[in-house]
Amino acid sequence: MPDVRIVLVGPKYEGNVGAVARSMANFDMSDLYLVNPCEIGEDAYRRAKHGNFILDGAKRAGSLKEAIEGCFLVVGTSGITTKGNKNYVRVPITAKEFSERMNGYEEKIAVLFGPEDTGLFQEELALCDVLVTIPSSSIYPVLNLSHAATIVMYELFGSDIPKPIPADEKEKEQIFEFFDLLLDAIDYPEHRKDGTSVMFRRMIGRSVPTRWEYNTLLGVFGDATKLIEKKK
Amino acid sequence: MPDVRIVLVGPKYEGNVGAVARSMANFDMSDLYLVNPCEIGEDAYRRAKHGNFILDGAKRAGSLKEAIEGCFLVVGTSGITTKGNKNYVRVPITAKEFSERMNGYEEKIAVLFGPEDTGLFQEELALCDVLVTIPSSSIYPVLNLSHAATIVMYELFGSDIPKPIPADEKEKEQIFEFFDLLLDAIDYPEHRKDGTSVMFRRMIGRSVPTRWEYNTLLGVFGDATKLIEKKK
Repeated sequence: MPDVRIVLVGPKYEGNVGAVARSMANFDMSDLYLVNPCEIGEDAYRRAKHGNFILDGAKRAGSLKEAIEGCFLVVGTSGITTKGNKNYVRVPITAKEFSERMNGYEEKIAVLFGPEDTGLFQEELALCDVLVTIPSSSIYPVLNLSHAATIVMYELFGSDIPKPIPADEKEKEQIFEFFDLLLDAIDYPEHRKDGTSVMFRRMIGRSVPTRWEYNTLLGVFGDATKLIEKKK
Repeated sequence: MPDVRIVLVGPKYEGNVGAVARSMANFDMSDLYLVNPCEIGEDAYRRAKHGNFILDGAKRAGSLKEAIEGCFLVVGTSGITTKGNKNYVRVPITAKEFSERMNGYEEKIAVLFGPEDTGLFQEELALCDVLVTIPSSSIYPVLNLSHAATIVMYELFGSDIPKPIPADEKEKEQIFEFFDLLLDAIDYPEHRKDGTSVMFRRMIGRSVPTRWEYNTLLGVFGDATKLIEKKK
Protein backbone atom coordinates (compact mmCIF):
# COMPACT_ATOMS: atom_id res chain seq x y z
CA MET A 1 0.00 0.00 0.00
CA PRO A 2 1.32 3.48 -0.80
CA ASP A 3 1.90 5.95 2.02
CA VAL A 4 -1.42 7.79 1.81
CA ARG A 5 -2.02 11.42 2.74
CA ILE A 6 -5.67 12.43 2.90
CA VAL A 7 -6.19 16.07 1.93
CA LEU A 8 -9.57 17.64 2.67
CA VAL A 9 -9.92 20.84 0.69
CA GLY A 10 -12.28 23.35 2.31
CA PRO A 11 -14.48 20.91 4.25
CA LYS A 12 -17.61 22.71 5.54
CA TYR A 13 -18.89 20.33 8.23
CA GLU A 14 -16.66 19.29 11.11
CA GLY A 15 -18.68 16.09 11.55
CA ASN A 16 -17.43 14.93 8.17
CA VAL A 17 -13.83 15.71 9.08
CA GLY A 18 -14.22 13.63 12.25
CA ALA A 19 -15.83 10.77 10.32
CA VAL A 20 -12.94 10.80 7.84
CA ALA A 21 -10.44 10.68 10.73
CA ARG A 22 -12.20 7.62 12.13
CA SER A 23 -12.08 5.85 8.77
CA MET A 24 -8.40 6.70 8.43
CA ALA A 25 -7.78 4.88 11.71
CA ASN A 26 -9.91 2.00 10.42
CA PHE A 27 -7.60 1.68 7.43
CA ASP A 28 -4.25 2.32 9.16
CA MET A 29 -3.75 5.80 7.76
CA SER A 30 -2.83 8.86 9.82
CA ASP A 31 -1.51 11.66 7.58
CA LEU A 32 -4.35 14.21 7.36
CA TYR A 33 -4.08 17.67 5.79
CA LEU A 34 -6.85 20.24 6.04
CA VAL A 35 -6.85 23.11 3.54
CA ASN A 36 -8.86 26.07 4.82
CA PRO A 37 -11.22 23.88 6.85
CA CYS A 38 -14.24 24.81 8.93
CA GLU A 39 -13.72 24.95 12.68
CA ILE A 40 -12.85 21.57 14.17
CA GLY A 41 -14.64 21.17 17.48
CA GLU A 42 -16.62 18.80 19.67
CA ASP A 43 -18.70 17.26 16.89
CA ALA A 44 -15.62 16.31 14.89
CA TYR A 45 -14.06 14.61 17.91
CA ARG A 46 -17.32 12.84 18.74
CA ARG A 47 -17.46 11.39 15.22
CA ALA A 48 -13.75 10.53 15.10
CA LYS A 49 -13.97 8.09 18.07
CA HIS A 50 -10.66 6.21 18.23
CA GLY A 51 -9.44 8.37 15.35
CA ASN A 52 -9.13 11.36 17.69
CA PHE A 53 -5.35 11.22 17.52
CA ILE A 54 -5.57 11.81 13.78
CA LEU A 55 -7.55 15.01 14.32
CA ASP A 56 -4.96 16.09 16.88
CA GLY A 57 -2.16 15.53 14.40
CA ALA A 58 -3.93 17.01 11.36
CA LYS A 59 -1.89 19.66 9.56
CA ARG A 60 -3.43 22.91 8.36
CA ALA A 61 -2.47 24.28 4.99
CA GLY A 62 -3.29 27.68 3.55
CA SER A 63 -3.29 26.37 -0.01
CA LEU A 64 -3.68 23.12 -1.86
CA LYS A 65 -0.16 23.43 -3.28
CA GLU A 66 1.25 23.53 0.24
CA ALA A 67 -0.71 20.39 1.18
CA ILE A 68 0.55 18.30 -1.72
CA GLU A 69 4.20 19.36 -1.59
CA GLY A 70 6.59 16.44 -1.88
CA CYS A 71 3.92 13.93 -2.88
CA PHE A 72 4.84 11.41 -5.56
CA LEU A 73 1.33 11.35 -6.99
CA VAL A 74 -1.63 13.70 -6.55
CA VAL A 75 -5.00 12.07 -6.83
CA GLY A 76 -8.21 14.02 -7.34
CA THR A 77 -11.64 12.63 -6.60
CA SER A 78 -14.85 13.65 -8.26
CA GLY A 79 -18.42 12.49 -8.34
CA ILE A 80 -18.99 14.37 -11.55
CA THR A 81 -17.31 12.72 -14.49
CA THR A 82 -17.12 13.88 -18.02
CA LYS A 83 -19.87 12.93 -20.46
CA GLY A 84 -18.11 14.03 -23.61
CA ASN A 85 -14.66 12.94 -24.63
CA LYS A 86 -13.15 16.38 -24.84
CA ASN A 87 -12.84 17.40 -21.20
CA TYR A 88 -9.65 15.52 -20.48
CA VAL A 89 -9.40 16.92 -16.95
CA ARG A 90 -12.40 14.84 -15.96
CA VAL A 91 -11.61 11.45 -17.49
CA PRO A 92 -11.49 9.29 -14.37
CA ILE A 93 -10.61 5.78 -13.36
CA THR A 94 -12.56 3.94 -10.68
CA ALA A 95 -11.39 3.70 -7.08
CA LYS A 96 -10.83 -0.02 -7.66
CA GLU A 97 -8.75 0.49 -10.80
CA PHE A 98 -6.73 3.12 -8.98
CA SER A 99 -6.04 0.84 -6.07
CA GLU A 100 -4.92 -1.92 -8.45
CA ARG A 101 -2.49 0.43 -10.15
CA MET A 102 -1.07 1.50 -6.78
CA ASN A 103 -0.21 -2.11 -5.97
CA GLY A 104 3.45 -2.31 -5.04
CA TYR A 105 3.98 1.44 -4.70
CA GLU A 106 5.19 2.64 -1.33
CA GLU A 107 5.63 6.31 -2.18
CA LYS A 108 3.70 9.13 -0.60
CA ILE A 109 0.52 9.91 -2.49
CA ALA A 110 -2.00 12.65 -1.74
CA VAL A 111 -5.69 11.90 -2.19
CA LEU A 112 -7.79 15.06 -2.44
CA PHE A 113 -11.43 15.52 -1.53
CA GLY A 114 -13.24 18.78 -2.23
CA PRO A 115 -15.91 20.64 -0.25
CA GLU A 116 -19.23 18.89 0.38
CA ASP A 117 -21.28 21.11 -1.92
CA THR A 118 -19.04 21.75 -4.91
CA GLY A 119 -16.30 19.13 -4.92
CA LEU A 120 -12.88 20.05 -6.28
CA PHE A 121 -12.74 22.94 -8.71
CA GLN A 122 -11.38 22.67 -12.23
CA GLU A 123 -8.13 24.45 -11.30
CA GLU A 124 -7.64 22.06 -8.37
CA LEU A 125 -8.30 19.03 -10.57
CA ALA A 126 -5.72 20.38 -13.00
CA LEU A 127 -3.08 19.87 -10.29
CA CYS A 128 -3.92 16.17 -10.10
CA ASP A 129 -2.05 13.37 -11.85
CA VAL A 130 -5.04 11.10 -11.87
CA LEU A 131 -8.76 11.49 -11.28
CA VAL A 132 -10.61 8.85 -9.32
CA THR A 133 -14.35 8.34 -9.15
CA ILE A 134 -16.73 6.01 -7.36
CA PRO A 135 -19.27 4.29 -9.59
CA SER A 136 -22.70 5.24 -8.26
CA SER A 137 -26.30 5.97 -9.15
CA SER A 138 -26.86 8.03 -12.28
CA ILE A 139 -29.84 9.60 -10.52
CA TYR A 140 -28.03 10.64 -7.32
CA PRO A 141 -24.30 10.12 -7.72
CA VAL A 142 -23.06 12.54 -5.03
CA LEU A 143 -21.81 10.64 -2.00
CA ASN A 144 -21.33 12.10 1.44
CA LEU A 145 -17.73 13.30 1.86
CA SER A 146 -16.75 10.78 4.53
CA HIS A 147 -18.44 7.96 2.61
CA ALA A 148 -16.48 8.77 -0.53
CA ALA A 149 -13.22 9.04 1.41
CA THR A 150 -13.98 5.76 3.21
CA ILE A 151 -14.49 3.88 -0.05
CA VAL A 152 -11.23 5.15 -1.55
CA MET A 153 -9.33 4.25 1.64
CA TYR A 154 -11.02 0.86 1.75
CA GLU A 155 -9.88 0.14 -1.81
CA LEU A 156 -6.32 1.25 -1.09
CA PHE A 157 -6.18 -0.79 2.11
CA GLY A 158 -6.78 -3.96 0.14
CA SER A 159 -9.22 -6.74 0.59
CA ASP A 160 -7.47 -9.66 2.17
CA ILE A 161 -8.43 -11.17 5.47
CA PRO A 162 -6.67 -14.02 7.24
CA LYS A 163 -8.44 -17.18 6.15
CA PRO A 164 -9.11 -20.10 8.50
CA ILE A 165 -7.23 -23.31 7.69
CA PRO A 166 -8.92 -24.88 4.68
CA ALA A 167 -9.47 -28.60 4.43
CA ASP A 168 -6.81 -30.57 2.61
CA GLU A 169 -7.28 -32.84 -0.38
CA LYS A 170 -7.74 -36.00 1.72
CA GLU A 171 -10.37 -34.43 3.93
CA LYS A 172 -12.22 -33.18 0.87
CA GLU A 173 -12.31 -36.61 -0.74
CA GLN A 174 -13.54 -38.08 2.51
CA ILE A 175 -16.54 -35.79 2.65
CA PHE A 176 -17.58 -36.76 -0.88
CA GLU A 177 -17.18 -40.42 0.04
CA PHE A 178 -19.29 -39.93 3.16
CA PHE A 179 -21.94 -38.10 1.13
CA ASP A 180 -22.09 -40.99 -1.36
CA LEU A 181 -22.39 -43.47 1.52
CA LEU A 182 -25.28 -41.39 2.85
CA LEU A 183 -26.96 -41.53 -0.57
CA ASP A 184 -26.56 -45.33 -0.49
CA ALA A 185 -27.99 -45.50 3.02
CA ILE A 186 -31.14 -43.59 2.10
CA ASP A 187 -31.57 -45.78 -1.00
CA TYR A 188 -31.23 -42.80 -3.29
CA PRO A 189 -32.37 -43.57 -6.86
CA GLU A 190 -29.42 -45.13 -8.69
CA HIS A 191 -29.85 -43.09 -11.88
CA ARG A 192 -29.68 -39.79 -9.96
CA LYS A 193 -26.72 -40.66 -7.75
CA ASP A 194 -23.97 -39.39 -10.02
CA GLY A 195 -25.69 -36.10 -10.73
CA THR A 196 -26.40 -35.41 -7.07
CA SER A 197 -22.88 -36.40 -6.14
CA VAL A 198 -21.40 -33.90 -8.59
CA MET A 199 -23.86 -31.25 -7.47
CA PHE A 200 -22.67 -31.66 -3.89
CA ARG A 201 -19.06 -31.47 -4.99
CA ARG A 202 -19.74 -28.21 -6.83
CA MET A 203 -21.54 -26.74 -3.84
CA ILE A 204 -18.65 -27.57 -1.54
CA GLY A 205 -16.25 -26.21 -4.13
CA ARG A 206 -17.98 -22.86 -4.21
CA SER A 207 -18.13 -22.50 -0.45
CA VAL A 208 -14.44 -23.37 0.25
CA PRO A 209 -15.11 -24.78 3.73
CA THR A 210 -12.57 -24.70 6.53
CA ARG A 211 -11.09 -27.83 8.06
CA TRP A 212 -13.39 -27.38 11.03
CA GLU A 213 -16.48 -27.14 8.84
CA TYR A 214 -15.48 -30.26 6.93
CA ASN A 215 -14.93 -32.24 10.06
CA THR A 216 -18.25 -31.14 11.51
CA LEU A 217 -20.10 -32.10 8.34
CA LEU A 218 -18.18 -35.38 8.16
CA GLY A 219 -19.42 -36.23 11.65
CA VAL A 220 -23.01 -35.45 10.70
CA PHE A 221 -22.98 -37.56 7.52
CA GLY A 222 -21.13 -40.41 9.23
CA ASP A 223 -23.53 -40.56 12.16
CA ALA A 224 -26.56 -40.33 9.90
CA THR A 225 -25.35 -43.18 7.71
CA LYS A 226 -24.52 -45.36 10.70
CA LEU A 227 -27.92 -44.81 12.32
CA ILE A 228 -29.81 -45.53 9.10
CA GLU A 229 -27.83 -48.70 8.41
CA LYS A 230 -28.42 -49.88 11.99
CA LYS A 231 -32.21 -49.58 11.60
CA LYS A 232 -32.24 -51.47 8.31
CA MET B 1 -27.14 -6.99 -8.99
CA PRO B 2 -29.43 -8.78 -6.55
CA ASP B 3 -32.49 -6.98 -5.21
CA VAL B 4 -30.99 -5.70 -1.95
CA ARG B 5 -32.86 -5.05 1.27
CA ILE B 6 -30.87 -3.19 3.92
CA VAL B 7 -31.89 -4.22 7.46
CA LEU B 8 -30.66 -2.07 10.34
CA VAL B 9 -31.06 -3.99 13.58
CA GLY B 10 -31.46 -1.73 16.62
CA PRO B 11 -29.64 1.35 15.30
CA LYS B 12 -28.99 3.82 18.14
CA TYR B 13 -28.19 7.06 16.29
CA GLU B 14 -30.66 8.50 13.83
CA GLY B 15 -27.84 10.31 12.03
CA ASN B 16 -26.45 6.95 10.99
CA VAL B 17 -29.85 5.79 9.72
CA GLY B 18 -30.08 8.95 7.62
CA ALA B 19 -26.55 8.49 6.29
CA VAL B 20 -27.37 4.89 5.30
CA ALA B 21 -30.50 6.11 3.48
CA ARG B 22 -28.39 8.59 1.50
CA SER B 23 -25.93 5.88 0.50
CA MET B 24 -28.79 3.62 -0.54
CA ALA B 25 -29.92 6.33 -2.95
CA ASN B 26 -26.31 6.67 -4.14
CA PHE B 27 -26.30 2.99 -5.05
CA ASP B 28 -29.84 2.69 -6.46
CA MET B 29 -31.29 0.80 -3.49
CA SER B 30 -34.49 1.69 -1.69
CA ASP B 31 -35.73 -1.23 0.41
CA LEU B 32 -34.92 -0.29 4.03
CA TYR B 33 -36.09 -2.19 7.12
CA LEU B 34 -35.57 -0.90 10.63
CA VAL B 35 -35.79 -3.40 13.51
CA ASN B 36 -36.51 -1.65 16.82
CA PRO B 37 -34.73 1.54 15.77
CA CYS B 38 -34.10 4.74 17.70
CA GLU B 39 -36.40 7.65 16.91
CA ILE B 40 -36.04 8.89 13.36
CA GLY B 41 -36.20 12.68 13.36
CA GLU B 42 -34.70 15.84 11.95
CA ASP B 43 -31.06 14.72 12.15
CA ALA B 44 -31.76 11.57 10.15
CA TYR B 45 -33.50 13.57 7.42
CA ARG B 46 -30.71 16.16 7.38
CA ARG B 47 -28.12 13.42 6.79
CA ALA B 48 -30.26 11.53 4.24
CA LYS B 49 -30.33 14.49 1.79
CA HIS B 50 -31.80 13.18 -1.48
CA GLY B 51 -32.33 9.82 0.23
CA ASN B 52 -35.22 11.30 2.24
CA PHE B 53 -37.73 9.25 0.27
CA ILE B 54 -36.02 6.10 1.51
CA LEU B 55 -36.51 7.15 5.14
CA ASP B 56 -40.16 7.89 4.34
CA GLY B 57 -40.62 4.42 2.89
CA ALA B 58 -38.61 2.55 5.54
CA LYS B 59 -40.52 -0.37 7.07
CA ARG B 60 -40.50 -0.99 10.82
CA ALA B 61 -40.20 -4.54 12.09
CA GLY B 62 -40.63 -5.77 15.65
CA SER B 63 -38.20 -8.63 15.12
CA LEU B 64 -35.36 -9.60 12.84
CA LYS B 65 -37.31 -12.64 11.60
CA GLU B 66 -40.08 -10.37 10.40
CA ALA B 67 -37.58 -8.17 8.54
CA ILE B 68 -35.97 -11.01 6.60
CA GLU B 69 -39.15 -12.89 5.68
CA GLY B 70 -39.19 -13.99 2.05
CA CYS B 71 -35.55 -13.18 1.40
CA PHE B 72 -33.60 -15.60 -0.74
CA LEU B 73 -30.39 -15.03 1.19
CA VAL B 74 -29.72 -13.46 4.58
CA VAL B 75 -26.37 -11.77 4.92
CA GLY B 76 -24.85 -10.85 8.26
CA THR B 77 -22.09 -8.29 8.65
CA SER B 78 -19.52 -8.20 11.39
CA GLY B 79 -16.36 -6.31 12.17
CA ILE B 80 -15.35 -9.01 14.61
CA THR B 81 -14.26 -12.17 12.87
CA THR B 82 -13.28 -15.46 14.37
CA LYS B 83 -9.70 -16.01 15.37
CA GLY B 84 -9.95 -19.71 15.99
CA ASN B 85 -11.34 -22.21 13.53
CA LYS B 86 -14.07 -23.59 15.77
CA ASN B 87 -16.55 -20.75 15.82
CA TYR B 88 -18.20 -21.50 12.49
CA VAL B 89 -20.81 -18.78 12.96
CA ARG B 90 -18.10 -16.16 12.51
CA VAL B 91 -16.19 -17.46 9.49
CA PRO B 92 -16.67 -14.58 7.05
CA ILE B 93 -16.01 -13.72 3.44
CA THR B 94 -15.00 -10.22 2.39
CA ALA B 95 -17.48 -7.71 1.00
CA LYS B 96 -15.71 -8.02 -2.36
CA GLU B 97 -15.88 -11.83 -2.42
CA PHE B 98 -19.55 -11.63 -1.48
CA SER B 99 -20.31 -9.20 -4.26
CA GLU B 100 -18.53 -11.45 -6.78
CA ARG B 101 -20.60 -14.43 -5.67
CA MET B 102 -23.80 -12.42 -6.06
CA ASN B 103 -22.96 -11.72 -9.69
CA GLY B 104 -25.91 -12.75 -11.83
CA TYR B 105 -28.36 -13.20 -8.96
CA GLU B 106 -31.48 -11.07 -9.10
CA GLU B 107 -33.25 -12.49 -6.06
CA LYS B 108 -34.10 -10.51 -2.95
CA ILE B 109 -31.31 -10.62 -0.39
CA ALA B 110 -31.30 -9.04 3.06
CA VAL B 111 -28.09 -7.46 4.32
CA LEU B 112 -28.09 -7.01 8.10
CA PHE B 113 -26.21 -4.43 10.16
CA GLY B 114 -26.22 -4.54 13.97
CA PRO B 115 -26.27 -1.73 16.54
CA GLU B 116 -23.34 0.73 16.57
CA ASP B 117 -21.90 -0.49 19.87
CA THR B 118 -22.33 -4.26 19.81
CA GLY B 119 -22.91 -5.33 16.23
CA LEU B 120 -25.13 -8.33 15.54
CA PHE B 121 -25.52 -10.84 18.33
CA GLN B 122 -24.61 -14.50 18.03
CA GLU B 123 -28.26 -15.57 17.76
CA GLU B 124 -28.83 -13.02 15.00
CA LEU B 125 -25.73 -14.17 13.11
CA ALA B 126 -27.06 -17.72 13.38
CA LEU B 127 -30.00 -16.69 11.17
CA CYS B 128 -27.61 -15.62 8.42
CA ASP B 129 -26.65 -17.71 5.39
CA VAL B 130 -23.38 -15.92 4.95
CA LEU B 131 -21.24 -13.60 7.04
CA VAL B 132 -19.55 -10.64 5.37
CA THR B 133 -16.73 -8.56 6.77
CA ILE B 134 -14.75 -5.54 5.65
CA PRO B 135 -10.98 -5.93 5.82
CA SER B 136 -9.70 -3.18 8.10
CA SER B 137 -7.09 -2.20 10.66
CA SER B 138 -6.20 -4.84 13.22
CA ILE B 139 -5.78 -2.02 15.74
CA TYR B 140 -9.14 -0.34 15.20
CA PRO B 141 -11.32 -2.52 12.97
CA VAL B 142 -14.74 -1.17 13.94
CA LEU B 143 -16.17 1.03 11.20
CA ASN B 144 -18.94 3.54 11.63
CA LEU B 145 -22.32 1.92 10.81
CA SER B 146 -23.03 4.01 7.73
CA HIS B 147 -19.45 3.59 6.48
CA ALA B 148 -19.71 -0.19 6.73
CA ALA B 149 -23.09 -0.21 5.01
CA THR B 150 -21.79 2.11 2.29
CA ILE B 151 -18.87 -0.17 1.50
CA VAL B 152 -21.08 -3.26 1.23
CA MET B 153 -23.53 -1.40 -1.02
CA TYR B 154 -20.66 -0.01 -3.09
CA GLU B 155 -19.34 -3.53 -3.67
CA LEU B 156 -22.78 -4.86 -4.61
CA PHE B 157 -23.43 -1.95 -6.97
CA GLY B 158 -20.42 -2.93 -9.04
CA SER B 159 -17.52 -0.96 -10.29
CA ASP B 160 -18.07 -0.15 -13.91
CA ILE B 161 -18.27 3.32 -15.27
CA PRO B 162 -18.97 4.26 -18.87
CA LYS B 163 -15.60 4.62 -20.55
CA PRO B 164 -14.81 7.27 -23.14
CA ILE B 165 -14.13 5.96 -26.65
CA PRO B 166 -10.66 4.40 -26.62
CA ALA B 167 -8.25 4.89 -29.47
CA ASP B 168 -8.25 2.18 -32.12
CA GLU B 169 -5.27 0.14 -33.28
CA LYS B 170 -4.39 2.49 -36.13
CA GLU B 171 -4.42 5.56 -33.91
CA LYS B 172 -2.24 3.79 -31.37
CA GLU B 173 0.38 2.86 -33.96
CA GLN B 174 0.37 6.42 -35.22
CA ILE B 175 1.26 7.82 -31.80
CA PHE B 176 4.24 5.49 -31.49
CA GLU B 177 5.35 6.47 -34.98
CA PHE B 178 5.04 10.16 -34.08
CA PHE B 179 6.98 9.58 -30.87
CA ASP B 180 9.78 7.89 -32.81
CA LEU B 181 9.83 10.77 -35.31
CA LEU B 182 10.15 13.14 -32.39
CA LEU B 183 13.11 11.15 -31.05
CA ASP B 184 14.72 11.43 -34.50
CA ALA B 185 14.05 15.15 -34.59
CA ILE B 186 15.75 15.79 -31.27
CA ASP B 187 18.72 13.64 -32.34
CA TYR B 188 18.09 11.21 -29.54
CA PRO B 189 21.06 8.85 -28.96
CA GLU B 190 20.69 5.94 -31.39
CA HIS B 191 21.53 3.24 -28.84
CA ARG B 192 18.79 4.41 -26.47
CA LYS B 193 16.04 4.84 -29.07
CA ASP B 194 14.59 1.35 -28.90
CA GLY B 195 14.47 1.28 -25.11
CA THR B 196 12.81 4.66 -24.86
CA SER B 197 10.37 3.74 -27.60
CA VAL B 198 9.30 0.61 -25.74
CA MET B 199 9.11 2.54 -22.47
CA PHE B 200 6.70 5.00 -24.08
CA ARG B 201 4.62 2.15 -25.49
CA ARG B 202 4.35 0.59 -22.03
CA MET B 203 3.38 3.89 -20.45
CA ILE B 204 0.65 4.45 -22.99
CA GLY B 205 -0.45 0.85 -22.52
CA ARG B 206 -0.92 1.31 -18.81
CA SER B 207 -2.84 4.55 -19.12
CA VAL B 208 -5.35 3.33 -21.80
CA PRO B 209 -5.86 6.77 -23.32
CA THR B 210 -9.09 7.83 -24.98
CA ARG B 211 -9.29 8.72 -28.67
CA TRP B 212 -9.40 12.39 -27.69
CA GLU B 213 -6.25 12.08 -25.60
CA TYR B 214 -4.42 10.30 -28.41
CA ASN B 215 -5.34 12.89 -30.93
CA THR B 216 -4.31 15.70 -28.62
CA LEU B 217 -0.92 14.10 -27.99
CA LEU B 218 -0.54 13.32 -31.68
CA GLY B 219 -0.97 16.99 -32.44
CA VAL B 220 1.64 17.97 -29.87
CA PHE B 221 4.26 15.49 -31.11
CA GLY B 222 3.53 16.28 -34.74
CA ASP B 223 3.85 20.01 -34.26
CA ALA B 224 7.00 19.66 -32.18
CA THR B 225 8.67 17.49 -34.78
CA LYS B 226 7.71 19.84 -37.60
CA LEU B 227 9.03 22.91 -35.79
CA ILE B 228 12.30 21.22 -34.89
CA GLU B 229 12.87 19.97 -38.42
CA LYS B 230 12.10 23.43 -39.83
CA LYS B 231 14.82 25.03 -37.68
CA LYS B 232 17.41 22.50 -38.64
